[in-house]
Amino acid sequence: MSEERTEISKLGEFGLIDYLTRNNDTKRAGTLLSVGDDGAVIDQFGKQTVISTDMLVEGIHFDLMYTPLKHLGYKSVVVNLSDIYAMMATPTHITLNIAISNRFSVESLDEFYEGVYAACERYNVDLVGGDTTSSNKGLIISITAVGEVTPDKFVTRSGANDGDLVCVTGTLGAAYLGLQLLEREKRIYLENPGVQPDLQQNTHCVGKILKPEARQDMVEWLEEKEVTPTSMIDISDGLSSELIHLCNKSQTGCVLYEDKIPVHDDARNLAYEFKIDPTMCALNGGEDYELLFTVKQEDHEKIAHNSSIYIVGYMTKEEDGRKLKTKGGNIHDLQAQGWNATSNEKN
Amino acid sequence: MSEERTEISKLGEFGLIDYLTRNNDTKRAGTLLSVGDDGAVIDQFGKQTVISTDMLVEGIHFDLMYTPLKHLGYKSVVVNLSDIYAMMATPTHITLNIAISNRFSVESLDEFYEGVYAACERYNVDLVGGDTTSSNKGLIISITAVGEVTPDKFVTRSGANDGDLVCVTGTLGAAYLGLQLLEREKRIYLENPGVQPDLQQNTHCVGKILKPEARQDMVEWLEEKEVTPTSMIDISDGLSSELIHLCNKSQTGCVLYEDKIPVHDDARNLAYEFKIDPTMCALNGGEDYELLFTVKQEDHEKIAHNSSIYIVGYMTKEEDGRKLKTKGGNIHDLQAQGWNATSNEKN
Repeated sequence: MSEERTEISKLGEFGLIDYLTRNNDTKRAGTLLSVGDDGAVIDQFGKQTVISTDMLVEGIHFDLMYTPLKHLGYKSVVVNLSDIYAMMATPTHITLNIAISNRFSVESLDEFYEGVYAACERYNVDLVGGDTTSSNKGLIISITAVGEVTPDKFVTRSGANDGDLVCVTGTLGAAYLGLQLLEREKRIYLENPGVQPDLQQNTHCVGKILKPEARQDMVEWLEEKEVTPTSMIDISDGLSSELIHLCNKSQTGCVLYEDKIPVHDDARNLAYEFKIDPTMCALNGGEDYELLFTVKQEDHEKIAHNSSIYIVGYMTKEEDGRKLKTKGGNIHDLQAQGWNATSNEKN
Repeated sequence: MSEERTEISKLGEFGLIDYLTRNNDTKRAGTLLSVGDDGAVIDQFGKQTVISTDMLVEGIHFDLMYTPLKHLGYKSVVVNLSDIYAMMATPTHITLNIAISNRFSVESLDEFYEGVYAACERYNVDLVGGDTTSSNKGLIISITAVGEVTPDKFVTRSGANDGDLVCVTGTLGAAYLGLQLLEREKRIYLENPGVQPDLQQNTHCVGKILKPEARQDMVEWLEEKEVTPTSMIDISDGLSSELIHLCNKSQTGCVLYEDKIPVHDDARNLAYEFKIDPTMCALNGGEDYELLFTVKQEDHEKIAHNSSIYIVGYMTKEEDGRKLKTKGGNIHDLQAQGWNATSNEKN
């Protein structure tokens, strides 16, 4: 090892990736899009393949105390497919690597795989390979998804322009609130093992964190309506962080209207119960796996009638900065703070 | 979790994969080859893509006490490319996921990536994506390699026939012996931190374990000479284990001649120093990353003059069993015992 020592925390999650990939030359003509988007795009024989990959670590990304293994298997696949959809591509295949400690039985692994197969079935994707190995501690999952896209029809993070409308495909914040609820019930259970948690009132939020779905439906709808987003990203780290990614990559500013940010009633009620601001959950919560995208203003008519699409703001010139206009009419700088310290940069 | 509990060790490494993938239906017409070979093959737009994936876990697959991070980065890539070559395909792209504990500095990660880039350069492969995340303990690496193959020219494990010649692309056993040496020097160092290890005498064996190469050269040579192997696998778990894989998948038996198994002089000398049988190192040692393949007898002439190709036996009918003919003329059943308890099934 070198004598110098820089802590990884000093660079931050996104800085680290930028630093480590600073010398990553593209050698092959077929590499159309590399590190730094939801997925990579490679040209193979004139056709285009999209690839994305994700790693999930026990104790960092999930807690098996309240995550059923079948749900975990399902979610592990879905979060990868979400990246492929965020390129306006169709996932076709996955590979799955897992490292497991001897704490796990064959039956528990089988439950995990049941969830994996359920997601493959639901999204019409084939599991074609993988590696199963030992870990010293816990469960580590690494999935790579491969997809197809019509040549040059993939949508990156970098195509947004001044004036484009900023859109979201569903409500936000519920996954974060579901997680808070599970964490609270875990603490209560640990203190009083006799008390059974009652999660019935909050199936929406708990469902969003434990068994998210990827927005295949929205990608298909946009294709059907011939709406080509100028940029797109999936919302894994909270709306703020993802919108700033689009601005950075597209070299734009933005205005986001607080009162346009869609929050489900169940999430809003749960936020009040936790005495936190629902909007902050949507901005910084993460794990919603909705799509954030921009369209040209001329596409407004086409998307206006889809009740799942919310127009939350618009892109501006880069020098105008990234702004949040509050319900009270104040203007703040948009910040990618992210509540979830374990969020991580990926492809 | 289910109430029943079957220990993973009960099924064994290969049994586990078979069990977990027993319900893995192939839904897509484009899935030409799925779980159970060195790589999967998917048809995309009439062209064929090969995919393989591997996971490496600190403390299971490598020991950072004697593994320089740059070498580890290099090797992590090479072992994946080796799987693609073992399909007679050409690797083109990789994705890389790593989970790291805060024990690692930015500088040490940078060393690891230097090795990754060196391998990408050497094999003309682009790194196009990945995920960098936290781990609670140690370093976990997951790489997926993608390659191209001329339609229907990929070589599986299942095409060998009775009478085919069994061939190996280089000498075997050195990686295992290199590992024994490093482990011995580690023990000595831990007992006497003042003593510096002298590995100069054993650069061949140490090089084979720390910085293996994939046999791109042999795949290109076979293509050039228009030799199409009937089956192929890369030797990651020892010759015995891999040959039994080919027999199982091809439904053949085999005869392996002990006196034909190629062992490098340096490996042989080191084996004598350790008082172990060099042949056993070749049969059960693993991590050599040479190619094991079968060809029709009529191809004998073409391969006979390549000094890197060793003909070590021939395939027989399944009912004749898998046999090792010793130097003394005795015949034993071939056993996939594998010295390396941490070896693992993949793809």
